[in-house]
Amino acid sequence: MFENKNQRTELEILGEFGLIRHLAKSIHNTHPQTNKGIGDDCAVIDRGDVFEVVTTDMLLEGVHFDLSYCPLKHLGYKSVMVNLSDIYAMNGKPSHIVVSLGLSNRISLEAVEELYEGMNLACERHGVDLVGGDTSASRSGLVINVTAIGAVPKDKIAYRSGAGEHDLICVSGDLGAAYMGLQVLNREKKIFLENPNIQPDLTGSDYVVERQLKPDARKDIIERLASENIVPTSMIDISDGLASELFHICTASEKGCRIYEEKIPVDVETARHAEEMNINPTVAALSGGEDYELLFTIRQSDFEKVKDMKGVSIIGHITAASAGLALVDKSEHETPLKAQGWDGIINV
Amino acid sequence: MFENKNQRTELEILGEFGLIRHLAKSIHNTHPQTNKGIGDDCAVIDRGDVFEVVTTDMLLEGVHFDLSYCPLKHLGYKSVMVNLSDIYAMNGKPSHIVVSLGLSNRISLEAVEELYEGMNLACERHGVDLVGGDTSASRSGLVINVTAIGAVPKDKIAYRSGAGEHDLICVSGDLGAAYMGLQVLNREKKIFLENPNIQPDLTGSDYVVERQLKPDARKDIIERLASENIVPTSMIDISDGLASELFHICTASEKGCRIYEEKIPVDVETARHAEEMNINPTVAALSGGEDYELLFTIRQSDFEKVKDMKGVSIIGHITAASAGLALVDKSEHETPLKAQGWDGIINV
Repeated sequence: MFENKNQRTELEILGEFGLIRHLAKSIHNTHPQTNKGIGDDCAVIDRGDVFEVVTTDMLLEGVHFDLSYCPLKHLGYKSVMVNLSDIYAMNGKPSHIVVSLGLSNRISLEAVEELYEGMNLACERHGVDLVGGDTSASRSGLVINVTAIGAVPKDKIAYRSGAGEHDLICVSGDLGAAYMGLQVLNREKKIFLENPNIQPDLTGSDYVVERQLKPDARKDIIERLASENIVPTSMIDISDGLASELFHICTASEKGCRIYEEKIPVDVETARHAEEMNINPTVAALSGGEDYELLFTIRQSDFEKVKDMKGVSIIGHITAASAGLALVDKSEHETPLKAQGWDGIINV
Repeated sequence: MFENKNQRTELEILGEFGLIRHLAKSIHNTHPQTNKGIGDDCAVIDRGDVFEVVTTDMLLEGVHFDLSYCPLKHLGYKSVMVNLSDIYAMNGKPSHIVVSLGLSNRISLEAVEELYEGMNLACERHGVDLVGGDTSASRSGLVINVTAIGAVPKDKIAYRSGAGEHDLICVSGDLGAAYMGLQVLNREKKIFLENPNIQPDLTGSDYVVERQLKPDARKDIIERLASENIVPTSMIDISDGLASELFHICTASEKGCRIYEEKIPVDVETARHAEEMNINPTVAALSGGEDYELLFTIRQSDFEKVKDMKGVSIIGHITAASAGLALVDKSEHETPLKAQGWDGIINV
């Protein structure tokens, strides 16, 4: 009522990544300790001996989670994990989190306790202290914001920008499962809403549903790399799908890449569900998102150490920028990769 | 659909502070660096030479702000200030913030730019770098979460818990203005909604409206105390009203207090608006909130240094716990103080 804007540009024209790039332009950091601002998994602050790494993530009801099938304990666990995953993606070790909650009057004390139970469990498993927070009323569903703080020795930090030509591209675990889990949950919800007498049937979907509801950040991989004295030349966590993350690494590193379809790790349960739902498992892996696995590059000289490393797959290599980004299928046909991210979702 | 809780306790039974105390019980911090978890303005992490202080605050549309009269630039400014205020309340110096935004499709690019303009201005004025963030879609209005990080030399930190008997109670600036500003804005909004041809009339309300929409965290007071070599024995920022903050300090310090009504600093514009609206100005100061002034205690030996300090009023003194908390009026009548906080607001 007190102002009138003349121009209006819809956010969907830029998309999430475009918006972030646009906003970052207006920011002028002045602290000599600010080593890295917007544009990686974490902000990086120079603390003398070590780099401090900081990340923040907001989860909103109706956008990031659906309370009709997401147990609050899992949600609390996941809201911490998505942040810890960003710390690991810098090759860092998380130590502290602070949590803000926006609570609607649908949420009871018991519900908040469950949420905190999940958060505490996640903290315990990853050696992290929950040290502060903020609780507010919300008129519009549950909102959870977690900020995580960690540290990494200066010579061990992994940015998105360090990938070199001929470096090997690696991923942890397997991809596409969280996305297929989401499809199963949405299918069962639809059946339930049509006929509330039919109870959800998640038999045979345990793995994919768990990957969606209760992802685990890959502390183990970071420890394994450290024990082999490997510092990834670049790293990012897979939250928006493999294709999108490859774009981030290649853009930041000014490189291209080739990844091989048959090398992309996909669990049998993921593949089975994808087939049942007429989804190409490779598409689920490339664009599904929410895997919270790590995508990283290593020097060829580290190949011997990584080739049999538990939970790590080598899926391709970095090329010159001019070669672009492409997926190579079994018949050696190349398909250019497309960035995905949350572009289609930001305007709801 | 996948679970069924038997017990349901409404959050309003506990209130915000009760909820925080309750949740804090379930948290077991293990890092030796964790010096202070939940229960002060900031979490405190031991970084060897200094304490790192961290705070987080969530602002939700419809609860903390009303976009019909809150310009986005002011909102951006305020969302940073409320966090910096918490850092100053530890006697700290803020250095970095990270920002999460939940954006509904009502928000255009120009709107986000305005919001960021305000955030950048706040950062500039306080020498803070905006180093990271997260942007998400929101189905339910604008959500802003800011986490601020700062530092304080170990011998300078001010907790809520350090107030000693006979210490003097001080506040910065004046109180109740932000609350009266909110009343003016709500009044004008009501008039506008009843008749959109009548434009809001804020003449003579500039100060109180500005205090509501665009508060400034008291960096200047922290610097003034430092230049006089004063370390407050306890400190807190006034976000929920003077009474509530006195309760926090007295509870944490296991003390009581006496404050003198005639000593409470209230601006003439605040007092005039209060009278016009039949609100007792002292009540606005005690329970209004959102002043973002500092409430602190000093040793009697620092009296000479503080008595003429610009922007600081001495309003009372700390007593033994057994004396309780009370307001002393002009006729020396004592009224027990009541804690207020957001208790009435948490369930909307």
